[in-house]
Amino acid sequence: MEDETLLMLPGPVPMPERVRSAMARQAINHRGAEFGNAYADIVRVLKGLFGTKNNPLVISGSGTSGMEAAVSNFGKGRKMAHLINGKFGERMYTIGQRYASEALPIESEWGTPLNLEKLTSALEDGVEVVTMVHNETSAGILNPGEEVGKICRKHDALFIMDGVTSIGGDVFKADDWFVDVAIVGSQKCLAAPAGLAAVSVSDRAWDRVVKNPPYYLDLPAYKKNAAKDPMETPYTPAVPIFLALREACLIIEEEGIENRISRHHKMAKAVRSAVAAWGVDMFPKTDAIHQYSNTVTAACIPANSNDKDFRGSVKKFGIQIAGGQDHLKDKIFRIGHMGAVSAPELLATIAATEYTIRKTGHKVTDSGVMAAAEVLG
Amino acid sequence: MEDETLLMLPGPVPMPERVRSAMARQAINHRGAEFGNAYADIVRVLKGLFGTKNNPLVISGSGTSGMEAAVSNFGKGRKMAHLINGKFGERMYTIGQRYASEALPIESEWGTPLNLEKLTSALEDGVEVVTMVHNETSAGILNPGEEVGKICRKHDALFIMDGVTSIGGDVFKADDWFVDVAIVGSQKCLAAPAGLAAVSVSDRAWDRVVKNPPYYLDLPAYKKNAAKDPMETPYTPAVPIFLALREACLIIEEEGIENRISRHHKMAKAVRSAVAAWGVDMFPKTDAIHQYSNTVTAACIPANSNDKDFRGSVKKFGIQIAGGQDHLKDKIFRIGHMGAVSAPELLATIAATEYTIRKTGHKVTDSGVMAAAEVLG
Amino acid sequence: MEDETLLMLPGPVPMPERVRSAMARQAINHRGAEFGNAYADIVRVLKGLFGTKNNPLVISGSGTSGMEAAVSNFGKGRKMAHLINGKFGERMYTIGQRYASEALPIESEWGTPLNLEKLTSALEDGVEVVTMVHNETSAGILNPGEEVGKICRKHDALFIMDGVTSIGGDVFKADDWFVDVAIVGSQKCLAAPAGLAAVSVSDRAWDRVVKNPPYYLDLPAYKKNAAKDPMETPYTPAVPIFLALREACLIIEEEGIENRISRHHKMAKAVRSAVAAWGVDMFPKTDAIHQYSNTVTAACIPANSNDKDFRGSVKKFGIQIAGGQDHLKDKIFRIGHMGAVSAPELLATIAATEYTIRKTGHKVTDSGVMAAAEVLG
Amino acid sequence: MEDETLLMLPGPVPMPERVRSAMARQAINHRGAEFGNAYADIVRVLKGLFGTKNNPLVISGSGTSGMEAAVSNFGKGRKMAHLINGKFGERMYTIGQRYASEALPIESEWGTPLNLEKLTSALEDGVEVVTMVHNETSAGILNPGEEVGKICRKHDALFIMDGVTSIGGDVFKADDWFVDVAIVGSQKCLAAPAGLAAVSVSDRAWDRVVKNPPYYLDLPAYKKNAAKDPMETPYTPAVPIFLALREACLIIEEEGIENRISRHHKMAKAVRSAVAAWGVDMFPKTDAIHQYSNTVTAACIPANSNDKDFRGSVKKFGIQIAGGQDHLKDKIFRIGHMGAVSAPELLATIAATEYTIRKTGHKVTDSGVMAAAEVLG
Repeated sequence: MEDETLLMLPGPVPMPERVRSAMARQAINHRGAEFGNAYADIVRVLKGLFGTKNNPLVISGSGTSGMEAAVSNFGKGRKMAHLINGKFGERMYTIGQRYASEALPIESEWGTPLNLEKLTSALEDGVEVVTMVHNETSAGILNPGEEVGKICRKHDALFIMDGVTSIGGDVFKADDWFVDVAIVGSQKCLAAPAGLAAVSVSDRAWDRVVKNPPYYLDLPAYKKNAAKDPMETPYTPAVPIFLALREACLIIEEEGIENRISRHHKMAKAVRSAVAAWGVDMFPKTDAIHQYSNTVTAACIPANSNDKDFRGSVKKFGIQIAGGQDHLKDKIFRIGHMGAVSAPELLATIAATEYTIRKTGHKVTDSGVMAAAEVLG
Repeated sequence: MEDETLLMLPGPVPMPERVRSAMARQAINHRGAEFGNAYADIVRVLKGLFGTKNNPLVISGSGTSGMEAAVSNFGKGRKMAHLINGKFGERMYTIGQRYASEALPIESEWGTPLNLEKLTSALEDGVEVVTMVHNETSAGILNPGEEVGKICRKHDALFIMDGVTSIGGDVFKADDWFVDVAIVGSQKCLAAPAGLAAVSVSDRAWDRVVKNPPYYLDLPAYKKNAAKDPMETPYTPAVPIFLALREACLIIEEEGIENRISRHHKMAKAVRSAVAAWGVDMFPKTDAIHQYSNTVTAACIPANSNDKDFRGSVKKFGIQIAGGQDHLKDKIFRIGHMGAVSAPELLATIAATEYTIRKTGHKVTDSGVMAAAEVLG
Repeated sequence: MEDETLLMLPGPVPMPERVRSAMARQAINHRGAEFGNAYADIVRVLKGLFGTKNNPLVISGSGTSGMEAAVSNFGKGRKMAHLINGKFGERMYTIGQRYASEALPIESEWGTPLNLEKLTSALEDGVEVVTMVHNETSAGILNPGEEVGKICRKHDALFIMDGVTSIGGDVFKADDWFVDVAIVGSQKCLAAPAGLAAVSVSDRAWDRVVKNPPYYLDLPAYKKNAAKDPMETPYTPAVPIFLALREACLIIEEEGIENRISRHHKMAKAVRSAVAAWGVDMFPKTDAIHQYSNTVTAACIPANSNDKDFRGSVKKFGIQIAGGQDHLKDKIFRIGHMGAVSAPELLATIAATEYTIRKTGHKVTDSGVMAAAEVLG
Repeated sequence: MEDETLLMLPGPVPMPERVRSAMARQAINHRGAEFGNAYADIVRVLKGLFGTKNNPLVISGSGTSGMEAAVSNFGKGRKMAHLINGKFGERMYTIGQRYASEALPIESEWGTPLNLEKLTSALEDGVEVVTMVHNETSAGILNPGEEVGKICRKHDALFIMDGVTSIGGDVFKADDWFVDVAIVGSQKCLAAPAGLAAVSVSDRAWDRVVKNPPYYLDLPAYKKNAAKDPMETPYTPAVPIFLALREACLIIEEEGIENRISRHHKMAKAVRSAVAAWGVDMFPKTDAIHQYSNTVTAACIPANSNDKDFRGSVKKFGIQIAGGQDHLKDKIFRIGHMGAVSAPELLATIAATEYTIRKTGHKVTDSGVMAAAEVLG
């Protein structure tokens, strides 16, 4: 029997049935008009979500393949700095180490503000390429894209920003924020299946593209093929995922980008209202420019409980929330609220979590469910 | 209105509806049992198709990503030789040039036998890694896996064989033939959607794996994650394609590997019988160890026609066959007969092609349709 | 954009994706083995759910077609009595009027106990056929199948019981309870799509079957065709709905009938616990043999509200509950909990309803959400 | 393993994948706008196909339910005449016998012209309602709708015409031809799944509608509910089949009615050209007003063969054609060419049939495959 657990994770997320049904399509020629039109639809919608005039290129691979495409095409043989306050910031650094002439980690505690002073020093010391994760799901923190973009541009460095879990769910302005390379994954805020990454590249970055990145991640080859009519990819694409992502993009277009982002903000507000009503601590430390994530909420597990018991209790209701990764295990729980998620899923998740919190013995101040309903109703 | 053209290409190929329906599944956790079991089913069936005791590793990427994984993990920094008698042989060489300390092309005319004497010389000169495309679809020729495997082993070189369009449709014995690294793509003989590559690796090759291949193609990371229980992939996989490939593998298991290969041989025989009945020339030059492909038939376009007219006439019947690539354009046409294709599709394709050949003014000797029916009936 | 409202109605109910995917099947011959096997699977599972040794016959039509098949094949030209305490009891009477020599309504207020004394008198006065609705969803009441069955048998009358919304969700024992003709619909507790009705018939009823019922509802023709190998229907069946119902039945088999009924009882208990916590009145008047329905809960709308406002407020959360029908409009609301519904849907519905009740100004005694969670967790 | 036989029958017919995918939709409220809009789309397209200004009513049941709805609502208690030259003409008579005050069969040999002189006499003798099957698939003959319509109108009789296998595939002009009640089934020329019948009714017929037809087939109730906004059905409809039929209707609209009928005529011509090339006899006897069916071709099995061998040989190629029914078994074979069928399926079927004919020893005059290709290419 299938596992029909409701996934309230920071990805993968539940997909609308239109998106899923799109994949049942019989095989089509990926060098023909039907495929090319699907690619074009994706690009049209993603441009709006990325906030860029450049056409995002779509790679048949995970978000990580998009991260590596960015680093290998623009950071290879160069001095790179990696801003880190969570797991995905660390992954960028790991990839940077394979390609950079020198890879400099600029680390903060997970979930705490990035160290922009160190970044400035590094840039003054000749760093040419900077990476940052916009929305760090491992810690539930939203990092300052605009501010870091300005600093990088001031020093003429290329700025690679991972928007894997923010693009499509939160404000993202690649061009205005001086983001040279931005990356999104299909299975997060876009509510499509896993399997595709999209990468947008500024003209400035194209001017500095390196030679001989991995053959499969050779962005100039993607650019050349995307310029054909009909649009193509250099290698055989994961056609069903393209068709699904296209459908997901059409749904986003129907909803409207502004509405979609407002909806994510509202969902985040509902969950945070519940956390406040419970008297439970949020995990991230925010400041003037670092905020709580609007696509995943990370809060602290009450003192008397642990990851297994806490999430196990929620799981009894058929709902899977995320725990903390690595050293945050047993310390935090995380509720994803991205993509096609709506009020019923949130109310159920908050109800199951509230029940669990009460069982730990934590003295709940007020009804989190009603607090969330007040926001959502 | 959707393009419902029947694709009789050397991939992508029509997929059974069970395979397509498998993708409509709601998002699942790719670190859970349902995904792990799907991966395990795939591996169990692929082992039989690859003819190996080793567990193939599955990459979320095209066949090309599998080719690059092979070359980058085992050829990087080494002296490589690339056997070439068609387009995909050339692609292996192109990838080799990005990683090898020295990449040596051993070229034959497309569709003619490989030069095994030159290969032997190259091995004697210190070549450490050899690549070959087993079934070269660009020319419709089946290259000698067993013979080349023996030569490589004799010189202690690693042998990388691209089985992208033979595995699942023709005999392939990785272990018996001394193939160290074999690669298959999901959208060819397996009749699954495009989007996955599987790579099997011999113990001998694992002993010689290099450091720091592309992060996304790091085969040791795939091996490590595949060893977990439930099985995992290092990065988020293209889940729907895994589920589709699993279903395709279950269908293969139900059909039986022997039966499947016999069916492909029968389909190839039917098409070749039609070609003979028409008095049209086959394109490849075979010899004692080089044979006609059993998954795609390449034959010569009659003198008075060209690619556009020829395939355009067949297309009027709603059937798409392939033409020649690069310099073979206007010279050959190719009919794919791989995967889930069966008698009705073949009869229709042969009928439309025969009608087209007659229209070119070519004097058809005998009914190709009845000749094919005699084989298939 | 599709309406993705969560339906918490007494049918139609959300369907598992396996059930929905089963319908994407290409057309099959409905006189072949694949169809016959599907029909046989349905019959095997339904026998358990009906509690009968007889093979239910499947009609391509709504539950109403099943009700009419029962009345027209066994009540035509006979004296019938119709027990009524809700809308569907009335419908049986309406159908009875088209076929009976005399149709006698035995009415109670909707949602109140049936008048079994009047039934006994009627039987003594020569009534030959009795109809009753087991689970009257219009009022949320479960009528006494066993008791009425005994009374009918004592007077040698045929007993037709509508199990449209109880079979598959609650205890139903056609043979033990002397039910001669029982009916179920596909889109209720079975969690399949609307479009099929199944009818089981006792040997005793077959002995009394009439001549010339409607041609399309001629049960002896269904019986004759179902006895073939492979099983058939007399007229072209709604094949995709059969395939979906088969899948729904296989899911029921996997869950186990006992487990399924327990799950329905638990869901009903959870909703009733919430209603009690809110201090809201249940609508039905129960007694020793009349109980609250286990598949739909009917409760009273608080004094200051009305149907439109009440259900409109719940609808804002993307959840549709049912209102009262006919004269019960504005008086009651009804929450369906049948089929594949599980904890998340219930928690969300109860949360949205609780929020709505609080907004009416009704003084909620306790948290209905936590009361329900206590039952479900 | 699924039976993937290609069905070349006079229904059920292969469905486009858009049609099949439409059924995977989650349950929706059948009293809401989404359902109502689907119903409205169906009606808009069917009006064009029926050739009527009246809105066809859709019943959740087979074509037979539509035939019975016509007879029971308009023929009950009246004197009826039934034109018969095949199996479905006989079925109309059988239904007529359940409702008419007197049911008069006017029989011809199957596949031969109807006896319109007898019809005229019957009308002069007071027959009030006449039934005819427009396209008699059992014999492959197309009966004269227009001529019979005129005769009926002249005598002021109601004319019920079964268009189950012509509407959507051939010219049908209900209003111009004086057809009072016309019926179509979903699984024939419309290329949707089995499960729905649609019935159009003239104003003249509504004026003569009877009381108390079967409750489930009560056409005035369908009319009343279809007039609501959103459109509804009186009883719970087979929602997935409605959604599929809607999609099938949209495909028809995209193709265009004229184009669709031309395509059917072309397919029929292709098959007849093959039959002529083979030197095989067509089965029906046509005259000035009786023609060969354009949706199914009935031809004679060669002398030395029989139904089982003949169709068994075609089946070996994975293609199912129809045989003769009842006394025509072993005498004829029938090839359906209706709905979404296109050139590849026809070429394959003709190739397999030609191979079979040659094997019987019948001396084939010319290549039927090339003759058909000449029409289709």
